[in-house]
Amino acid sequence: MSGKFITLEGGEGAGKSTQALRLAERLRGQGITVVTTREPGGSEGAEAVRALFVDGAPDRWSVAAEACLINAARADHVERLIRPALERGDWVICDRFVDSTLAYQGAGKGLADSALRSLHHIAAADLWPDLTVLLDLPFAEGLERARSRGGAGRFEAHDTGFHGRVRAGFLQIAADEPARCRIVDSTGDADAVEAAVWAAVELLCQSHAPHDDGYRAPPETPAGRGMHVDTGDD
Amino acid sequence: MSGKFITLEGGEGAGKSTQALRLAERLRGQGITVVTTREPGGSEGAEAVRALFVDGAPDRWSVAAEACLINAARADHVERLIRPALERGDWVICDRFVDSTLAYQGAGKGLADSALRSLHHIAAADLWPDLTVLLDLPFAEGLERARSRGGAGRFEAHDTGFHGRVRAGFLQIAADEPARCRIVDSTGDADAVEAAVWAAVELLCQSHAPHDDGYRAPPETPAGRGMHVDTGDD
Ligand SMILES: Nc1ncnc2c1ncn2[C@@H]1O[C@H](COP(=O)(O)OP(=O)(O)OP(=O)(O)O)[C@@H](O)[C@H]1O
Ligand SMILES: Nc1ncnc2c1ncn2[C@@H]1O[C@H](COP(=O)(O)OP(=O)(O)OP(=O)(O)O)[C@@H](O)[C@H]1O
Ligand SMILES: [Mg+2]
Ligand SMILES: [Mg+2]
Repeated sequence: MSGKFITLEGGEGAGKSTQALRLAERLRGQGITVVTTREPGGSEGAEAVRALFVDGAPDRWSVAAEACLINAARADHVERLIRPALERGDWVICDRFVDSTLAYQGAGKGLADSALRSLHHIAAADLWPDLTVLLDLPFAEGLERARSRGGAGRFEAHDTGFHGRVRAGFLQIAADEPARCRIVDSTGDADAVEAAVWAAVELLCQSHAPHDDGYRAPPETPAGRGMHVDTGDD
Repeated sequence: MSGKFITLEGGEGAGKSTQALRLAERLRGQGITVVTTREPGGSEGAEAVRALFVDGAPDRWSVAAEACLINAARADHVERLIRPALERGDWVICDRFVDSTLAYQGAGKGLADSALRSLHHIAAADLWPDLTVLLDLPFAEGLERARSRGGAGRFEAHDTGFHGRVRAGFLQIAADEPARCRIVDSTGDADAVEAAVWAAVELLCQSHAPHDDGYRAPPETPAGRGMHVDTGDD
């Protein structure tokens, strides 16, 4: 795999979908081939699971069922879309990934972190992002943004205690994994957030091996892939 | 839990559905309240997952996705139907359960047994049957029965190597867990198979604590529940 895998995370209405599109455009402006995708979903099988996952009453699924469902979708998405793209050398930007599961089903609903990590091992063979940008804002602001957009889903209808635990869960992950995660304040306007996201991606490119996931390129593959980012330094 | 949990297992067309109904009638004849159910499915959420699982091309899902999907369905089924029934004191007869997952996704498709047991721990909090009856017959005979019934599903369309590994996987489970599992030759006619299944259930009732799953009845509950089975001994 020579492509980079970037995920955007955060609670409801944090601006993930908006920023995923903007980041993809910026990277394409650098001549990089970018695949944008989302979870739950992103591949045919995973989108079919998404419909079960995001619709219905808040208590439609127990947390164990939710965790298995999202990992079924992720297994399909990783195997059929994300890994092939990374192996081609494309970059992948994903709107939500494993950290949403840790924050929503773990911190939010109390499923053990060890169980969630076992599931990630089984479903995604431990694929972790090279960079995760956490778009952070008070959950009430995010819910307000999401509701004004209309079409509230199953998770938006969860209680405020839940959304508070989710936000705290995301912040804890970012604190625990500073080499992989960058926190971006997303209370600002979309242009300000975009600039902060871009700064995080520039850091990823400068550090060349920002997150060592244990993967070693086979000997015949050139190590790393050139990317020109206008940092103002050259 | 004071009810007994009995599962019927075996490959395609082994006669599980036929025998589940016959066994339920026999038990009802003894005055026992019986819930019959099936997997994948058995509860509203699980039946929605079933549709994804059993339809489509044989390679629609990777084995990891399949294992997560079936455990999502099982989590719902166990929490919302099976455990409540057992806690009421009803007996539950289930057409396929965890052994089908060990045999199909494990022996048949190579997913690690340890991964499948982790999933069972997460999804079903390690609920294991009191008795599992394995209906065993050469897979070609079972496929022939199933096809003559019409409406072949996704698994019936898997190759013969797969069905051979599934049969061997079931037999290995039964050999490894003789206290829980009884093998019944299902090449005979339905009446002969019914008699053999009933003999296995009589053994369960005679032995009173045939499979110790670690569960201890709370002190106020009478230990065990009277059941009259005509064994010819009394
Ligand atoms: N920085 C911002 N300031 C104000 N509103 C924003 C900002 N970014 C996005 N929005 C608006 O807020 C709403 C939510 O944004 P977006 O859909 O990008 O968030 P999201 O994190 O993907 O949400 P969800 O989790 O619900 O998919 C949209 O209506 C969007 O136009
Ligand atoms: N002992 C038997 N001898 C011959 N045919 C049988 C016998 N038991 C069941 N059948 C017939 O074989 C077919 C498969 O039986 P059944 O549906 O009970 O099996 P099953 O194990 O539930 O199969 P599946 O895994 O496909 O659901 C049915 O048409 C049924 O009527
Ligand atoms: Mg979004
Ligand atoms: Mg059947």
